[in-house]
Amino acid sequence: MTLNNQSTAILLVECHDKAGIIAKVTDFLAQHNGNIVDLEQHVDIADQHFFMRVEWQLDNFNLPRQSIQKTFEEQVGACLNMNWRISYSDIKPKMAVFVSQHGHCLFDILSRYQSGEWQVEIPLIISNHKKFQSLADNASIPFHHLPVSADNKGQQEQVQLALLAEHQIDTVVLARYMQVLSPEFIQQYPNEIINIHHSFLPAFPGAKPYHSAHERGVKIIGATSHYVTSQLDAGPIIEQDVVHIRHNDNIEDLKRKGQDNEKIVLSRAIRHHLQSEVLVHKNRCIVFD
Amino acid sequence: MTLNNQSTAILLVECHDKAGIIAKVTDFLAQHNGNIVDLEQHVDIADQHFFMRVEWQLDNFNLPRQSIQKTFEEQVGACLNMNWRISYSDIKPKMAVFVSQHGHCLFDILSRYQSGEWQVEIPLIISNHKKFQSLADNASIPFHHLPVSADNKGQQEQVQLALLAEHQIDTVVLARYMQVLSPEFIQQYPNEIINIHHSFLPAFPGAKPYHSAHERGVKIIGATSHYVTSQLDAGPIIEQDVVHIRHNDNIEDLKRKGQDNEKIVLSRAIRHHLQSEVLVHKNRCIVFD
Amino acid sequence: MTLNNQSTAILLVECHDKAGIIAKVTDFLAQHNGNIVDLEQHVDIADQHFFMRVEWQLDNFNLPRQSIQKTFEEQVGACLNMNWRISYSDIKPKMAVFVSQHGHCLFDILSRYQSGEWQVEIPLIISNHKKFQSLADNASIPFHHLPVSADNKGQQEQVQLALLAEHQIDTVVLARYMQVLSPEFIQQYPNEIINIHHSFLPAFPGAKPYHSAHERGVKIIGATSHYVTSQLDAGPIIEQDVVHIRHNDNIEDLKRKGQDNEKIVLSRAIRHHLQSEVLVHKNRCIVFD
Amino acid sequence: MTLNNQSTAILLVECHDKAGIIAKVTDFLAQHNGNIVDLEQHVDIADQHFFMRVEWQLDNFNLPRQSIQKTFEEQVGACLNMNWRISYSDIKPKMAVFVSQHGHCLFDILSRYQSGEWQVEIPLIISNHKKFQSLADNASIPFHHLPVSADNKGQQEQVQLALLAEHQIDTVVLARYMQVLSPEFIQQYPNEIINIHHSFLPAFPGAKPYHSAHERGVKIIGATSHYVTSQLDAGPIIEQDVVHIRHNDNIEDLKRKGQDNEKIVLSRAIRHHLQSEVLVHKNRCIVFD
Repeated sequence: MTLNNQSTAILLVECHDKAGIIAKVTDFLAQHNGNIVDLEQHVDIADQHFFMRVEWQLDNFNLPRQSIQKTFEEQVGACLNMNWRISYSDIKPKMAVFVSQHGHCLFDILSRYQSGEWQVEIPLIISNHKKFQSLADNASIPFHHLPVSADNKGQQEQVQLALLAEHQIDTVVLARYMQVLSPEFIQQYPNEIINIHHSFLPAFPGAKPYHSAHERGVKIIGATSHYVTSQLDAGPIIEQDVVHIRHNDNIEDLKRKGQDNEKIVLSRAIRHHLQSEVLVHKNRCIVFD
Repeated sequence: MTLNNQSTAILLVECHDKAGIIAKVTDFLAQHNGNIVDLEQHVDIADQHFFMRVEWQLDNFNLPRQSIQKTFEEQVGACLNMNWRISYSDIKPKMAVFVSQHGHCLFDILSRYQSGEWQVEIPLIISNHKKFQSLADNASIPFHHLPVSADNKGQQEQVQLALLAEHQIDTVVLARYMQVLSPEFIQQYPNEIINIHHSFLPAFPGAKPYHSAHERGVKIIGATSHYVTSQLDAGPIIEQDVVHIRHNDNIEDLKRKGQDNEKIVLSRAIRHHLQSEVLVHKNRCIVFD
Repeated sequence: MTLNNQSTAILLVECHDKAGIIAKVTDFLAQHNGNIVDLEQHVDIADQHFFMRVEWQLDNFNLPRQSIQKTFEEQVGACLNMNWRISYSDIKPKMAVFVSQHGHCLFDILSRYQSGEWQVEIPLIISNHKKFQSLADNASIPFHHLPVSADNKGQQEQVQLALLAEHQIDTVVLARYMQVLSPEFIQQYPNEIINIHHSFLPAFPGAKPYHSAHERGVKIIGATSHYVTSQLDAGPIIEQDVVHIRHNDNIEDLKRKGQDNEKIVLSRAIRHHLQSEVLVHKNRCIVFD
Repeated sequence: MTLNNQSTAILLVECHDKAGIIAKVTDFLAQHNGNIVDLEQHVDIADQHFFMRVEWQLDNFNLPRQSIQKTFEEQVGACLNMNWRISYSDIKPKMAVFVSQHGHCLFDILSRYQSGEWQVEIPLIISNHKKFQSLADNASIPFHHLPVSADNKGQQEQVQLALLAEHQIDTVVLARYMQVLSPEFIQQYPNEIINIHHSFLPAFPGAKPYHSAHERGVKIIGATSHYVTSQLDAGPIIEQDVVHIRHNDNIEDLKRKGQDNEKIVLSRAIRHHLQSEVLVHKNRCIVFD
């Protein structure tokens, strides 16, 4: 749901399931005069685990913003042994985009960025190639060309991490960045690095999935956006979609049709993430969309 | 969500929106030790209207079933000026199926009925043709052949209504029943008569939508399942889906491809209805799926 | 394309690609006054291979049916070193259905069979369980209960093969038949045994794909209909489709939503096969739809 | 099918159906040593009309390019009373883009233009607003700001037409251009003006289709790309697609989700047009894809 021009707070919660959790949280909000505009919850019954996203208006909410978190932990979180976090619709997260030589996802991201579709700031683009320098310039986003080879990869990751830290980056988007990040890099941003893989995972992980799809003779090709973990193409899946193909689509056609799918799937995943709609549990994403 | 072998209660609620409604309802459930397994809510902000579906386990719920409704009204419903109803997962609603001469939807319904996919009883099938008598016999469902003409339509509707009353029918499914029901009939079962129309409404209402679709040269054809109101093909939409077509699909192909879509769309709508997932507001369906 | 009430011949052709093949074939038809109602061809350029399906009306075609094949081979096929076969729209192929304990695909097949949607005869159903005996009885199709265990599998396959031979079966459909056929069985019916697997292959081959899909946390589930080869779930793919799922769909929901997809995908594949629309080349299907 | 680095000729043909047309055309190509890489044909049986697209390699074709058209008309076209045209894969058509204040389609077009996805030249962008001046500048495409009011519309169309003529424009794309073109303008470019309308036509023609969709409570929203005719939103449809929506999607959400669909549908339609894959007959498009 899109709420224009209203400041809201968003609570994401997970904990062991038991009776009364929703009542406890919504009582807290009601006592402080918070009007809920959206609440979604999920119980994983097999796992006895509880998940919830609550969004409420801040207009008449009678706790000052700087004390919301402390008060919530004292009155609710601690009692229920919850993992939780609160974000605010009027505070834009900061996102870095990594790209190599395929520009369709980057173009799509910049189109949305420039139209104001997302609540986000993009303070930098990082690439191992120079190809999209002028595209970044046109969008007035600083572009960092950091070529990567087998020899300098560790060093360049240090440069990248320093840039991310300097710009207080919350989220990293790999918009067809054709380099595998090291586990050390990844653990700095748990569930904050979003990748797009050009297949319906778990089919065709790794390199050249469109070639593999053509070779296997599938009738649908897919794209998968997921959080990056240290295991290649195996992180929790945020969004997937497919397009149908026919026998007369060769590998070039698969790439072309697939790229339309990739950019839409990645952008949907980014939006879910930016709207605080995603919780990760046991390598699976709960997406409150 | 499918919950096997557990009795649950399902509350559907709608009322004017204000702060504290969810807290009030979930408090009530928590006080009586009801463990919520699913809760979905929706606020129509433009309309300031609130909608909710809550499902909770009855195992440890400490109100006897016969007093749940009265207690809820006293302690919650009346205070908040709510419209609400409660149903129970272990009480099967009763459904009648009306059909004419196209059997694909009826076949699909009976397939699910015989496999136990739905929580429902089907005590009768009504048709203006004899064609599916033996199909009904094979499924051990009484079949009533009630031919309809311009002359006898009013009388036959009386017979139909008497049959529905006799069998305490909750829901009527028009599985490609090619007769328009009278407003008098319809008002007996508000939001309880489910129709399947073979187009993506509001395009191509009325007769022969596949002919119209072919004539217009559309590239997708659709099917729409909706509650029947006195205005033809204009009732609240529960479910819609489409299939892609090509220039080489003639009207027979459209019918064939469309029928696959129709039966799936109708069956999804029936399931939503049987699971108490649908609320109707201002001719629109809120579907908590 | 559906052509009602007209007898047509269908030629399927494949050979090494070179200039002039289409001219040669269509000249032959024109000389004998055959009016082409559908022609589709495909050139695998990487592989230099040519494929074509031509359908023409028999009404004014001036070769008697019994000499069509001989004349075509003499005048066209031999010169171009073609693999080809001709079928006739008014000769119904014979199809056997194998099923275990999930009935959704069988129900769907019988629904189409009884409505006359397909040009096919189904002279027998074979199952390793008794469950669908009465369903087969109601459709007036002989039902053979052949229980299979590790011990008797070879013997039972001999019984099955004898039944298929006795009824001159052209095509075998595995409508969720939960037994793996032996290579000896399979080689009797090359590209004539159609299976439905409940995942988007190559993801999740083998047993319990919905469990694996749930475990992996995918956002789409699929179904794949393919010709059976001696390598499990690796035969040429005729048709695939997917449905979207959400985090609140548990394994039972996946099965339920997946079954709707399975039956539609299988039935589309069967139709392609019955209409002589499929050519297999290097484990991939060319589907002229 | 994508053919890289090979010059091909593409013939589009339509005429009254009779036996022998394909033979006649393919004989002509075979005689001149033209190797067919793609041939698709369609017979509208009800209408007795024949349509075909043939693409062949020019490498060994033994007619010089300047005489292909004359020779084809003499030897084939005239005999069969055909409408036909021939285009060449190595000659880029010229396309103008018209836009107003929604940039998602323009961004998508420029992304493809800059990556070289399409065989096309875009010598100018025309807009009634200044908003996308710098976007055009960055793509090095001349931008013409021609504000339109009720008073000056006729004059501005003359300016537009002069610009199109000056740049020898073949095709005009209305990428969410919110002005209705006059019949006089439209008739200058029959089946060469491509529009994107943000609904699944014929539902919701005219202004504010997302508002109407929300009001009606549909569960799918669509986009339609069509050739512009003098009847508003009633021209022949090239491409359509839909996205599913839920009750919690408000009008802003519909716009956002719909825009993703619009840009993909428009770009698919443009590609079909640029690849000479589209024939129009009786207000319907035959799309040989």
